[in-house]
Amino acid sequence: MFSGAQVSLYPMSDDFVGVIMGALSALDPHRDRLRIETDDISTLIVGPPDVLFDAMRDLFVAAAKTGTHCVLSATVSRGCPGEPDDPICTPIEGRAPDTPIEQRVTASVEAVKNAPIVGQSVVCQVSLYPLGAGQHMDEIEGCIAFLKASSVFDRPKNFCTKLSGDAGAVFAALGEAFTRFGSLDGHLTLDVTVSANSPTRV
Amino acid sequence: MFSGAQVSLYPMSDDFVGVIMGALSALDPHRDRLRIETDDISTLIVGPPDVLFDAMRDLFVAAAKTGTHCVLSATVSRGCPGEPDDPICTPIEGRAPDTPIEQRVTASVEAVKNAPIVGQSVVCQVSLYPLGAGQHMDEIEGCIAFLKASSVFDRPKNFCTKLSGDAGAVFAALGEAFTRFGSLDGHLTLDVTVSANSPTRV
Repeated sequence: MFSGAQVSLYPMSDDFVGVIMGALSALDPHRDRLRIETDDISTLIVGPPDVLFDAMRDLFVAAAKTGTHCVLSATVSRGCPGEPDDPICTPIEGRAPDTPIEQRVTASVEAVKNAPIVGQSVVCQVSLYPLGAGQHMDEIEGCIAFLKASSVFDRPKNFCTKLSGDAGAVFAALGEAFTRFGSLDGHLTLDVTVSANSPTRV
Repeated sequence: MFSGAQVSLYPMSDDFVGVIMGALSALDPHRDRLRIETDDISTLIVGPPDVLFDAMRDLFVAAAKTGTHCVLSATVSRGCPGEPDDPICTPIEGRAPDTPIEQRVTASVEAVKNAPIVGQSVVCQVSLYPLGAGQHMDEIEGCIAFLKASSVFDRPKNFCTKLSGDAGAVFAALGEAFTRFGSLDGHLTLDVTVSANSPTRV
């Protein structure tokens, strides 16, 4: 199943090019399992979901550790019928077909608990879009139930859910949302914004 | 029908707060038709689709005219079953139910042609997500056919379509995609990134 993301990193700094270039080496440990292409708006990262979220976390944390106010914005997609298959992408692991939503919520909460701590505090907002399914709200509501029960839940917002906490747990929660909800081999996208070092406190 | 957007503006500058604060007055002519709430990640703008896209355009152009590399990122949504209705939101105008996709493509292309020129060049990428419909790919492909036939089409990308041109035409195209495709009263979201003054040329 084709899976990947269009990822952009926005450092709010005159030296935005330097911050971005300095963070890119954080992708190196993941590069052999990813295909990466950059243009003037975003970077396409194609690969299996678990590697995708680890790579986005490491890229963002490397930029945020500079202390600059940084934002990562990503459109993450799997199973799009319009995309060609790619051998670099592997199926979702660790999820049996037809697992009831309640079990998936519990497993996702547990996975976030066990996520590595990376020592970078972030806030995040996320929307899940399961496409082509008649019961899309059941899967969205299941995903929201998971996020609410997880250690990184912050508050509901219009059109999205706000998370906050350590980047390790927050990106783990995003990965769980992406793989554990929506049809196992269906078309699903995630709209993600992660922010660190904002001068605004809410 | 509830419609609105979570909008973020990212000026790549040490003076990002100044650029954002300086651009906010561009929203003033639209404020009486919108409800606006800001937190540390994004600004919620609730209101009718035509006002939403004009307001986002004016906000972004005011920031971009400073010459700073700026990005606007937005999650635009209508008809979400989880959102309460709001009297400030009005139904989509100028679209009869059951209009065939071909007619909607033609009408959208024409609307972009007639968009005001605002004198700010931008690039953009957009994804359309019609939710809860079995035939979601027909509407996505109809929308892509419109974008390809429009004056602002740049190129296809994985998971999205890239546009470029004057901000007037580009935001008009986004408004057409949002209102003219997907079920007339269904749940639909748009994932939008608009960029100006990037030092990267592709």
